[in-house]
Amino acid sequence: MTSETNQNTAHPVTMRDVAEAAGVSIATVSLVVNEKKNARIGDDARKRVRDAIRDLGYRPNALAKTLVSGHSKFIGLVADAIATTPFAGQIIHGAQDEAWKHGYVLLVANTDGNADAEREAVGMMLEHKVRGILYSTWYHRATEVPAGLRETDFVLVDCYSPDDDATAVVPDEVQGGRTATQLLIDSGHRRIAMINTTTPSPAHEGRLLGYQQALAAAGIAYDPALVFDALPEQEGGYDSVEQLLASGATAVFCHNDRVAMGLYDGLRRRGLSIPEDMAVVGFDNQEVIAAHLRPPLTTVALPHYELGAKGIRLLLGIDEHRPNQLVTVDCPPVLRSSIAEAAHIAS
Amino acid sequence: MTSETNQNTAHPVTMRDVAEAAGVSIATVSLVVNEKKNARIGDDARKRVRDAIRDLGYRPNALAKTLVSGHSKFIGLVADAIATTPFAGQIIHGAQDEAWKHGYVLLVANTDGNADAEREAVGMMLEHKVRGILYSTWYHRATEVPAGLRETDFVLVDCYSPDDDATAVVPDEVQGGRTATQLLIDSGHRRIAMINTTTPSPAHEGRLLGYQQALAAAGIAYDPALVFDALPEQEGGYDSVEQLLASGATAVFCHNDRVAMGLYDGLRRRGLSIPEDMAVVGFDNQEVIAAHLRPPLTTVALPHYELGAKGIRLLLGIDEHRPNQLVTVDCPPVLRSSIAEAAHIAS
Repeated sequence: MTSETNQNTAHPVTMRDVAEAAGVSIATVSLVVNEKKNARIGDDARKRVRDAIRDLGYRPNALAKTLVSGHSKFIGLVADAIATTPFAGQIIHGAQDEAWKHGYVLLVANTDGNADAEREAVGMMLEHKVRGILYSTWYHRATEVPAGLRETDFVLVDCYSPDDDATAVVPDEVQGGRTATQLLIDSGHRRIAMINTTTPSPAHEGRLLGYQQALAAAGIAYDPALVFDALPEQEGGYDSVEQLLASGATAVFCHNDRVAMGLYDGLRRRGLSIPEDMAVVGFDNQEVIAAHLRPPLTTVALPHYELGAKGIRLLLGIDEHRPNQLVTVDCPPVLRSSIAEAAHIAS
Repeated sequence: MTSETNQNTAHPVTMRDVAEAAGVSIATVSLVVNEKKNARIGDDARKRVRDAIRDLGYRPNALAKTLVSGHSKFIGLVADAIATTPFAGQIIHGAQDEAWKHGYVLLVANTDGNADAEREAVGMMLEHKVRGILYSTWYHRATEVPAGLRETDFVLVDCYSPDDDATAVVPDEVQGGRTATQLLIDSGHRRIAMINTTTPSPAHEGRLLGYQQALAAAGIAYDPALVFDALPEQEGGYDSVEQLLASGATAVFCHNDRVAMGLYDGLRRRGLSIPEDMAVVGFDNQEVIAAHLRPPLTTVALPHYELGAKGIRLLLGIDEHRPNQLVTVDCPPVLRSSIAEAAHIAS
C-alpha cells in the first residue's frame, strides 16, 4: 500500500539511455562512468556523455563499481546504544563528518548490546565490503573485540580491549578530572569534595586520579573523607547533600552533570545557594541539562564529536599513532556560572 | 597505521575454498548460496556445501547478490539530526528493530538539515539500490519532499508534506494535548493553564486544540487568558511563573518537559510546592529529565519508537492505509508524581 507514494517514480535511467542521448556506444559510457582516464575517448564524446548523465539524471550503480574495485565507500559504525540514547550522539556526528570528508559514507548499526544483533551487523558490513569498522560504546568502558571485526580494519571508539593491542581512542578521564578540580582551586577553594560514581569504570578511576593530581599540584593534602560514591544520576546527587554539608567542603566536583542536577535540588531544598554556599562543577557537558540549570553549570565536556572524528582518521591511517598506544582525547572545560570566588569563604 | 589492528586478519574465504572443501563445483556452491531452490542439487551435496560454508566462515558477497536481484536488503533512513541530538533517537531504534524483523538492514544518514548532504545521502542510497527510504525529522514539522526520494518508495516520519499526498506518519498532537489536560481534569482541577510554545508548529496547534477539546468535554469554558506562549525550553518555563500565578490556575499543562523543568525551578524559588501548590503535566517524556525531576514528572510520551517502526511497516506495505491519509500514532500518558488531587483546593 505504499504505491501511491510512488506515483511520480520515473523509469530508472539506464546506461543505454545515456549512450543513445550522447550518440556513443554503451562501452564508451561505461568507460566514462568508471573513470578509466587512459581510455581512448575524445574530449568531445566524453563531454557529451557527461552532459547526458547530468541531463537524464543517470545514477551509476555503486554496487557494480564496488565489485570491480573489491571494496566499497562504506565505513561501518557498530554501536551498542549511541544512536538511541540521549548521550554520545556526537560520536556519530564526528565520525560521519570525517568519513564524508574523505569520500566515505557511514553505515550505522545499533545493537543495543545484543550479541546476536552485533554479530549480524558486523557480518552485514563485511558482506558489503566496508573499508573498515568503528566499534563504539555509549560510555567509556573495557570491551572484548567481537571476532568478526578482525576480518577488516577496525578501531575501538570510547572503549578499549584490556587484553590486546587493538587500536582504541578514548576520552582522557585523568586530564578531565584534573581540569574540573583545577577550576575550583583557581577560584580559591581549598576544601574540595568529589562525588564519584558507584560503578567501577575508567571514568571512576581516571577522574579520581585527576582530582588527586590537581590537589597535589596545588599543595592541598588529599583527604579521603571528602570523596563519596553515589549513583551516577540525579538521585545520587540529591542523596549526597547531607554528607557533603557535613564534610565542611566549600566546593564539589560531581562525577557527571546529572549528579550535579540532583545536588542542585538537594541544596536548594535546604535553602542554600549555588555558587555562594557551594561551588559546583560537573562532567559531560550533557546537552539539554548543563546549560539550562539554575545557575548554568560549569563543567568539563566529554569530547564525543572528536572521538568519532579521530576514530575515522586512525582507521584511514590519516592520523598516526604508536603501537599499543591508547589514543586519548582531551576533555575541555566549559565555563558557566556555578563556581564563585572563594576569597570570602572562611576555610 | 592501522595495520597492527589487523594482525589477525585472515585471508578471506572464497567460493573456491568452499567448493574444494565440499567436493563440488563452484557453480554448485553458487546455486546453494543464491538459494536457487529449484536447482538440481542432491540433498547430500547441498548439506556438504552448507557445512563447508559454516566451518570455513565463508561470507557470500551481498553486493553480487544485489546486482542479480536488482535491489538490496537496505532500507535508508535520512534524518536531519535524529542521531546527533538527545531527542527522537528512538525513531532509529523502532525503525531498526522493525527492519531487522523483516530481513532488512537500516542505513542511517544524518544530514544536519544541510541540503547538499541530504542530496548526497539520498543519491548514495539510490546507488546502493535501497528497498526504500524513511525521511525523518527530529521534531514534528512540515517539510518538502527532496526530489531524489521519488525515485524509490519512501515514507515521511515525524514530518509531512502539506502540498502533496506523500505517505507520512506523525504523532497525534491533538490526542496528546487532550490526554495531558484530561489527567488534570480527572484530578479535580478546573482552572487549568497551558504554557504553549512560541514556535508555530503542528505541536503548537495540535496540543492547544486537544487542551480545548478536553475542557469542552468536561464542561469547562475555554479562557484564553489561561494560555501563554513561552520559549520551549527551561528558560521559557522559568519566566512564565509570574503570569501563571497571576492567572489563578491550580494546574498547568506545559508544552514540553523542558518547560516543566524550568517551571519547577521558578515555583520553588517562590517557596511553592509541586504538586500541592501547582499540579504540573509535561509532554515528550524526555529521557534524562522527566523521570528525574523532583517530584518525577507526569507527562505524555512522544511515540518515537512506534513512529520509526510504523514507518517501516508502511514502507514495506505490511500496514495498509488509505490514500491521502496522514497516519497518526497515539501519545500515551506516563503517570508519575506531579499531579495532586485538587479536591482540597478552593477554586
